[in-house]
Amino acid sequence: MFLRNQWYVAGWAHQFEPGAIVARKIVDEPLVLYRAEAGHVVAMEDRCCHRFAPLSRGRLEGDAIRCMYHGMKFASDGRCVEIPAQDVIPEGMRVRVHAVVEKDRWVWVWMGDPARADPDLIPHALYHDDPNWLIGTGQMGYDANYQLIHDNLLDLTHLSFVHENTLGRGSPAWGTARPSVTPIDRGVRVSRWLRDRGTSPYVRMPQQKWDAWASYDFVLPGVFLLRTAFYSTATASGFPDGPPGDLEPAYVIVTSQAVTPVSERETIYYYSGGQLRRHGSSALIRDQIRAFGVAFLEDKAMIEAQQKIIDATPDRSMMTLTFDRATAMFRRLMATLIEQEAKNRARIGRVDLAAAQ
Amino acid sequence: MFLRNQWYVAGWAHQFEPGAIVARKIVDEPLVLYRAEAGHVVAMEDRCCHRFAPLSRGRLEGDAIRCMYHGMKFASDGRCVEIPAQDVIPEGMRVRVHAVVEKDRWVWVWMGDPARADPDLIPHALYHDDPNWLIGTGQMGYDANYQLIHDNLLDLTHLSFVHENTLGRGSPAWGTARPSVTPIDRGVRVSRWLRDRGTSPYVRMPQQKWDAWASYDFVLPGVFLLRTAFYSTATASGFPDGPPGDLEPAYVIVTSQAVTPVSERETIYYYSGGQLRRHGSSALIRDQIRAFGVAFLEDKAMIEAQQKIIDATPDRSMMTLTFDRATAMFRRLMATLIEQEAKNRARIGRVDLAAAQ
Amino acid sequence: MFLRNQWYVAGWAHQFEPGAIVARKIVDEPLVLYRAEAGHVVAMEDRCCHRFAPLSRGRLEGDAIRCMYHGMKFASDGRCVEIPAQDVIPEGMRVRVHAVVEKDRWVWVWMGDPARADPDLIPHALYHDDPNWLIGTGQMGYDANYQLIHDNLLDLTHLSFVHENTLGRGSPAWGTARPSVTPIDRGVRVSRWLRDRGTSPYVRMPQQKWDAWASYDFVLPGVFLLRTAFYSTATASGFPDGPPGDLEPAYVIVTSQAVTPVSERETIYYYSGGQLRRHGSSALIRDQIRAFGVAFLEDKAMIEAQQKIIDATPDRSMMTLTFDRATAMFRRLMATLIEQEAKNRARIGRVDLAAAQ
Repeated sequence: MFLRNQWYVAGWAHQFEPGAIVARKIVDEPLVLYRAEAGHVVAMEDRCCHRFAPLSRGRLEGDAIRCMYHGMKFASDGRCVEIPAQDVIPEGMRVRVHAVVEKDRWVWVWMGDPARADPDLIPHALYHDDPNWLIGTGQMGYDANYQLIHDNLLDLTHLSFVHENTLGRGSPAWGTARPSVTPIDRGVRVSRWLRDRGTSPYVRMPQQKWDAWASYDFVLPGVFLLRTAFYSTATASGFPDGPPGDLEPAYVIVTSQAVTPVSERETIYYYSGGQLRRHGSSALIRDQIRAFGVAFLEDKAMIEAQQKIIDATPDRSMMTLTFDRATAMFRRLMATLIEQEAKNRARIGRVDLAAAQ
Repeated sequence: MFLRNQWYVAGWAHQFEPGAIVARKIVDEPLVLYRAEAGHVVAMEDRCCHRFAPLSRGRLEGDAIRCMYHGMKFASDGRCVEIPAQDVIPEGMRVRVHAVVEKDRWVWVWMGDPARADPDLIPHALYHDDPNWLIGTGQMGYDANYQLIHDNLLDLTHLSFVHENTLGRGSPAWGTARPSVTPIDRGVRVSRWLRDRGTSPYVRMPQQKWDAWASYDFVLPGVFLLRTAFYSTATASGFPDGPPGDLEPAYVIVTSQAVTPVSERETIYYYSGGQLRRHGSSALIRDQIRAFGVAFLEDKAMIEAQQKIIDATPDRSMMTLTFDRATAMFRRLMATLIEQEAKNRARIGRVDLAAAQ
Repeated sequence: MFLRNQWYVAGWAHQFEPGAIVARKIVDEPLVLYRAEAGHVVAMEDRCCHRFAPLSRGRLEGDAIRCMYHGMKFASDGRCVEIPAQDVIPEGMRVRVHAVVEKDRWVWVWMGDPARADPDLIPHALYHDDPNWLIGTGQMGYDANYQLIHDNLLDLTHLSFVHENTLGRGSPAWGTARPSVTPIDRGVRVSRWLRDRGTSPYVRMPQQKWDAWASYDFVLPGVFLLRTAFYSTATASGFPDGPPGDLEPAYVIVTSQAVTPVSERETIYYYSGGQLRRHGSSALIRDQIRAFGVAFLEDKAMIEAQQKIIDATPDRSMMTLTFDRATAMFRRLMATLIEQEAKNRARIGRVDLAAAQ
């Protein structure tokens, strides 16, 4: 089950070079994407409406794409504009196109009812385009359902166990400090002090120990936005509910991560890591992204193993503990919206069709 | 869904060497084939009736084959003739045998009701055994349903797109000239002039441009028989409906291709290419077969991608255009016969059993 | 379908080294096994009850195992004894543990109702721990249902066919001598004389020809215990029903083999081979185990091919001949017990739960 009326990240903007034809699958729908000559990205279903050949094996001709099975040519609005050796083009001969927005270096595709594709729903990735920040990027595929990856991100206790020798090494507090969890618009906010947190190998910081305020929003459809600000030790005691806004941190690291469902058992994960330009350096950012890659392989191994057990024992149900407050809150939000969409499916279907003609 | 009351190509005659045990699967039935001492090919189900071990892992003993799991021995008529250490052989202890005809270098196996196995239904491959012709042979496996390969062969427009740099290179007319399509006995005939057709790298022809009359029959269960005759340019204008029978072409190339369903998602494809001995040479024939192999890999990539999309979106249906007349005609023929066979299944089943005992 | 109220071999004792965490699947249930500090083996379900992460990716802490996803810690009785940053541990927070017995170098796990786990039901492997014997060990995985491997072991006729060039080479009598088959407690006994049996490459025997008395028990849940005793030729004529107990054989070889179902289509097979210390040598035992490994690959190829045919034609049924008496007898025993367990499932389920809390 997927949410369709959502913007999903289809990739990093730099992955869509002019002239390139990019095949993707999002919420089980095959897409073909390419840059139109004006520079914007076009996304359409990757299935010629004639005999279902993939358009991603086709040829770009200006802003149009030609199916290279029998030569049908489609304009960037999805209409068939040429059938070889045939003058009349049937009315309904078109492929579905999806709204695309490029924002914060991410290419976002709307997978639902076109009439509801509101760009204001797109979350803001942290400083991807801010000249004061250095940002590195990466991606990873998982053979697991996307909600297991949500769960993973909504409970960072796992840093002390899955990542005990990597990301979690310097800060055992991940495993012991209970965060505050609050509902926000379209998601959950999870915040905590990590007292006496050590530094990471990818930062250059004067002291060895800090009080770090780690706070992230996890918002629909599966976007994780974490900011970790380092203060001198004892700050946490002074401000147990978080640092006041005017208190300048000694160092800040951020990461934005987007979980995109490919199919029920495949997910792709786009992530950035960043530091203030005045704190970091390109080399440190490379180290940060490399450290994320290593740690996410640890997640991948754990989550894919978890998925296999779930599939093997579909009749068992997981336990939800106090511990799992954020996870449970977001799972409920997802379940509610999935149910709503299922109810509206028939109506949306009709709207869709109308919009498409 | 398959047609069973059909002759299917099980391979090239030269693949059945004396003493060889050949395992095949046709319309989802495992077969074991071998040459009897008298030279004819025997085909039986590849499944010992005792514990279902494959006879193709067995041992030929004269005209009989012995299962090498527990030693049951079967005569070439399918009867069990020996059970180790047991005197009595139960009445019904036999495996099913299939009628086999070797014709035009192809080994044809009847997969349906034995009572209806009429060799006159076998189509004539083009000049496979004619001393005036040089013929080369090949084969290729596809991970796709056989009807997608029928579709491919019934619409040669694709030569200008799938094979734009190979088979279709010299003759853009494939993509533009609408063929005449006529129903024939057990199939469809598709004919067209390819005006100003260039030559192919595997022919030796005096001029660069020709009018070529390309006409093929596509007949049950999936046999493609194409003859392309080259005439001087302007011939097409003089004879728009095809060259008169007494007009000698400058060059003729032929190809025969048989599509054999292995399972719902696997197909094997046996093909020949040929030229008149007085036109061609062994080297040219080798070039022709090599060119076919390269082109069919292009088909295979496209068709297997198409199959994946079809499987991913089973609820969508393809469009049928004017364009698709031959495809649609043969699809209807297949659907009608498949439905008929489904209706007769019970009765055929009974006949079968009676015939087998 | 599996029997659950049985002891299954989970491996060789030497595979469970102190500190090692061993993952296994038996009758489709994932297990994690390790040695407690007192030396006994602990077996629990390999699925943390929190979010279903595999405990086999966890960390041993004394006799407890900690899930390395979110840090839950389980004692060796299955109770959760620690939740990071949470004081209260919910009542039902536990994983299932299985009774384990180490006997005859095999680690046996009870997969059913704990109340019925009677160690007296465990069969005696042949001389695994007897200082008068030299014993070698091996294992092999099959992609096939465990009952096909039972069938294989219950009908040694196949030695003359599957193993005609290996195990069966010296003794064509396997294919011709009908054994006596008698029901025994929890299984079947199959005995026969192999007259004029040759020697094997892995024994050192003074003569080339012998009368060998080959007798094995095949008992629940799938344990094969074969003793082959060699006597001078003509002994069989004197004692057609088997050698008298006081007749000393010239040489004895034994093998114990345990068939453990992993899933419906995967099985693991643990086997030993042995000779009296005064007859054999370590080198001969290594040869014997190597010969078994080669022969079992022959079985594996045949049985996996057989499994594929069975899966492809689920509507056909095998024939049962006089020949198959032992096979049929054990199949009936299995079917009866599987049916009984299915009937008792609800009740056992309840007992289980009660026992587990």
